[in-house]
Amino acid sequence: MTTLVFGHKSPDTDATGSAIIWAWYLAHTGEEAEPRVLGTPSAEALFVLDRWGVAVPPLLENLPEGTPVVVVDTNNPAELPDGINKADIRAVIDHHKLTGGLETRGPIEMTIRPVASTATLLYQLMDGHAGHAPEAIKGLILSCILSDTLEFRSPTTTEVDRRIAGLLARDLGIDIPAYAAEMFAAKSDVSGLSDAELLRIDSKEYTVDGVRLRVAVIETTAPEPILARIAGLAAAMPQVAAEDDADQVLLFVVDILREQATLVTPNALARTIAEKSFGVSATGDSVLLPGVMSRKKQIVPVLRVN
Amino acid sequence: MTTLVFGHKSPDTDATGSAIIWAWYLAHTGEEAEPRVLGTPSAEALFVLDRWGVAVPPLLENLPEGTPVVVVDTNNPAELPDGINKADIRAVIDHHKLTGGLETRGPIEMTIRPVASTATLLYQLMDGHAGHAPEAIKGLILSCILSDTLEFRSPTTTEVDRRIAGLLARDLGIDIPAYAAEMFAAKSDVSGLSDAELLRIDSKEYTVDGVRLRVAVIETTAPEPILARIAGLAAAMPQVAAEDDADQVLLFVVDILREQATLVTPNALARTIAEKSFGVSATGDSVLLPGVMSRKKQIVPVLRVN
Repeated sequence: MTTLVFGHKSPDTDATGSAIIWAWYLAHTGEEAEPRVLGTPSAEALFVLDRWGVAVPPLLENLPEGTPVVVVDTNNPAELPDGINKADIRAVIDHHKLTGGLETRGPIEMTIRPVASTATLLYQLMDGHAGHAPEAIKGLILSCILSDTLEFRSPTTTEVDRRIAGLLARDLGIDIPAYAAEMFAAKSDVSGLSDAELLRIDSKEYTVDGVRLRVAVIETTAPEPILARIAGLAAAMPQVAAEDDADQVLLFVVDILREQATLVTPNALARTIAEKSFGVSATGDSVLLPGVMSRKKQIVPVLRVN
Repeated sequence: MTTLVFGHKSPDTDATGSAIIWAWYLAHTGEEAEPRVLGTPSAEALFVLDRWGVAVPPLLENLPEGTPVVVVDTNNPAELPDGINKADIRAVIDHHKLTGGLETRGPIEMTIRPVASTATLLYQLMDGHAGHAPEAIKGLILSCILSDTLEFRSPTTTEVDRRIAGLLARDLGIDIPAYAAEMFAAKSDVSGLSDAELLRIDSKEYTVDGVRLRVAVIETTAPEPILARIAGLAAAMPQVAAEDDADQVLLFVVDILREQATLVTPNALARTIAEKSFGVSATGDSVLLPGVMSRKKQIVPVLRVN
């Protein structure tokens, strides 16, 4: 039976790329495996796939009980298909906090490491096989690292992310600053998206002090057009929250080049969260958080409602 | 702040030994760390500590919020102190099924592999440092592997468990069959234990089809005296279940040398579970399960109530 490899819902570059990378590795080492996505990949992920000549993986339409699967880039059942705990989870490879809720019937392989991208960890777990991977696989690993580290600007960046990206770029003849700029430009063109779509580009669910939050992050090299839409974005939040079973949407607009985030604070709850979590005074419709770039490392661990 | 390393409640040889082994490794590599236990170690574990001249680790009395901890040999919060999710969990190293429920605020190191003992995985993660570990640490690793594999008889045994145990035994000048026989003899002398104590030697909690089960296993080279006590053990089950918040105690007496288990079936629920899970016909007060030796691999994955 073919093992299906997939990452989280709202697939970004690391979730999409890591599924393809690991399915390649499993097939390369003799196990039938194919990548899947749980939704349309992000604009940046689509750019990366196109750049390296890799097809968009098929959408996971359903997950029959007992299907062998490998989960990459998440360990949170809320970010996975409903039937995930009835699948035959063979392995989980991730770099996020432990969420709880994922269960298996027998012992599995689970590897979580605090590196910046799941692809970094895949490279390490491949034990040398990455060296003879096709150019496209190497290109995907490099792209995932540049995406998740925001070209090494994010505080999640470790020495090992930096070293592996450097090796791959040299091997592939890629100029990192020029290539990363292309990737970020692809991600930053959001002019065609509605306010609700913008809130859902990269949104994850967390329950903090009993309040269900959708923590949306927009990473961009061109924040101005997004910040000009704050009123519209704030107006779209209640409906997005209701449709996604949350109490509040928290939107962080991350300015990749200036290395700062703007948190949108349209109501008392959002302002309270801003004050309790980041120790800032929030009075207007947004608040600037200098140095904040990483949801994983700088946002989720400090979130407080009370 | 000193990192505390501990395994599960009702500490057996692997839980006790792995805490000591990993605390040694962390200290050896420059991190302040100490082992703890969550209860009195099993008779086999106490024999092993005494044999290698290692002190019994202190009991974990309380766990203040934010204490840095490493959890070994479990990922199940029900087998850990109540405050575990308020501790600063730095790493989880285990070889059991994924249970769900353990949560962290930030990314951590988590490694689960389907090897027979946690100590096997620790040896691998030590990356060569095991080679210059003190004899006592090597002896503990060997003992954990022999304990969890039942001297390589359990189907959980992998080639890597066998290989590492062989290397260590040679290095230490230990005759495996003779040493394992001593360990199992220590474990098999249960004459001083009451029926309720016997049921709690090695008992873990699982919820199956909504029914809360305490799955108790007694591994022994001398099953006869235990099987002669079935009536008393069955009579002690309701109170043990009530005190431990379970609906039913399931007792498996594992005969290490004959490689079989006897499941005690004192009532209709236990008999139904025996039939649904193992496809046997259960009419009397116990049923023989040939070849069944491993709770992890042969019992928990097949348990059915309906």
